[in-house]
Amino acid sequence: MDLVKEVLKGNARAVAKAISLVENNGKNTQEMMKKIFPYTGKSVIVGVTGSPGSGKSTLVDQMVEYLRKDKSKIGIIAVDPTSPFSGGAILGDRIRMMRHSLDAEVFIRSMATRGHLGGLAKATGEAIAIFEAAGKNMILVETVGVGQDEVEVVKLADLILVILIPGTGDDIQIFKAGIMEIADIFVINKADSSGADKMENQLRAMLELGMKNREIPPVVKTVATEGEGIGLLIDEIQNFISKKSPEFQAKRKKRLLSWMLKDIIKDKIFERISQNIEESDFDEFIERIYQRETDPYSVADKIVGRFKAKS
Amino acid sequence: MDLVKEVLKGNARAVAKAISLVENNGKNTQEMMKKIFPYTGKSVIVGVTGSPGSGKSTLVDQMVEYLRKDKSKIGIIAVDPTSPFSGGAILGDRIRMMRHSLDAEVFIRSMATRGHLGGLAKATGEAIAIFEAAGKNMILVETVGVGQDEVEVVKLADLILVILIPGTGDDIQIFKAGIMEIADIFVINKADSSGADKMENQLRAMLELGMKNREIPPVVKTVATEGEGIGLLIDEIQNFISKKSPEFQAKRKKRLLSWMLKDIIKDKIFERISQNIEESDFDEFIERIYQRETDPYSVADKIVGRFKAKS
Repeated sequence: MDLVKEVLKGNARAVAKAISLVENNGKNTQEMMKKIFPYTGKSVIVGVTGSPGSGKSTLVDQMVEYLRKDKSKIGIIAVDPTSPFSGGAILGDRIRMMRHSLDAEVFIRSMATRGHLGGLAKATGEAIAIFEAAGKNMILVETVGVGQDEVEVVKLADLILVILIPGTGDDIQIFKAGIMEIADIFVINKADSSGADKMENQLRAMLELGMKNREIPPVVKTVATEGEGIGLLIDEIQNFISKKSPEFQAKRKKRLLSWMLKDIIKDKIFERISQNIEESDFDEFIERIYQRETDPYSVADKIVGRFKAKS
Repeated sequence: MDLVKEVLKGNARAVAKAISLVENNGKNTQEMMKKIFPYTGKSVIVGVTGSPGSGKSTLVDQMVEYLRKDKSKIGIIAVDPTSPFSGGAILGDRIRMMRHSLDAEVFIRSMATRGHLGGLAKATGEAIAIFEAAGKNMILVETVGVGQDEVEVVKLADLILVILIPGTGDDIQIFKAGIMEIADIFVINKADSSGADKMENQLRAMLELGMKNREIPPVVKTVATEGEGIGLLIDEIQNFISKKSPEFQAKRKKRLLSWMLKDIIKDKIFERISQNIEESDFDEFIERIYQRETDPYSVADKIVGRFKAKS
């Protein structure tokens, strides 16, 4: 089959296959992506992050449920820290989302954070592009909020939701880590538990202090397990998108492109260098480093020195 | 002060400062590392990984306690997934280790997994090198086992401990994820809890099945909170090191060097490219990509095409 053509038709199997190609970063991936690229750039990309246990997956599930009433076509990218250990628990979350897996207009894809040759930004950006080409108009990028790589990935979205839950001290951590600056909308989930109001007050007070010359992001309270507050959250998302200037929106879109381009460049260069160093040469370098006859920095200087910019 | 000279004397403040320089990957870092490098390569590097909650930090703490009786000089590198959310819990673990922080011969350093410009392998390798130059003869690299990057880092050690705890299903995950292949010694911690014997039997059975033509790694049971089994574990570590051929040991050491060299090369190349692209050029490329007049792959081809190998 013509993979790109099938992706453009929205064929779910083709989409899955295309993303697998991207993840494996194979030889013909770039040719495929060049063809897909012109069809991208039109969907809304929402980054969703929060601590494990904040009910992120349930919230995403409910958002999908709500948006589907609208006939929105949705792609979900779940960025998982790849661990032999945490595998189980995360998988559990995913399975809850399966109720949408029979819905042909909802695509769900897990992306591992493991050593992407071309970088996680590239792989995620490419998966987003494939979803867009397949006709999705909203793409949710969900991360479990463990690992800075994932925080970086969330920053590639057009709009960032940060999910907090009452009584976990998350509020303090958030401010320490500069997450305040990246959140476009705060969600206080499990808002039916005690301490939700107190948390909201604290959060608002801190935001007012911290955001002197900037607009204070909305704070939405939800109970994801009951579907409460989801409509309000979707309204805030649509409000955010519609009230921002085209320039602002373009800036966000360009941020993603810029990260992708850097990843692709790094990837290509390393490929080129690998082609120009014989493996036996490399082994000899390592041997000399091992013998402490030289050091990795001097060897790197030498290897990189072989390349020069064409004038 | 002459930083390198002070590092070589084992001055703790100099070591801390040197590692900070490495983490920030500043301009003069490489000059420093070139001077430090000749003094490296002689310590035993032990990677310690296991799921959160497996008692890793307590185990490391007890190992340090035990080894200190021997006057071993120890460096600990704790590779932390940088998260605004998990920050609290991980910090808690670290604080437990503070009882050694007054011991001048034990250096403890947390390394964040966040976007190291030069890669986590490079940063960790350099921290190891600094510890070695400062006279440490055993270096423990501890990771919380979340995120594949950390698993990669553990692979850079001379010897890898994998910590399991009974009754968590970790046993199955381990085999799925190919962790079996990287473990040199298995530790069943919390061995006083029910299910420890059963787990040991299962693990041994699986190892016998899986390791057809290879030696089966030792399985050591510990109760880290009580210090039980620690002596046995240290014996197994020393046994592993002493019985392996020099060739085997060299291979492990070279693996670390090889990863570091690759990271350093990538780093240098990207630096060189950045010098050769004006920021305004880059912005124009992004604008054209954004307008879908071109795509990131074609632009990367063009940029990388500017470089050629000198003949």
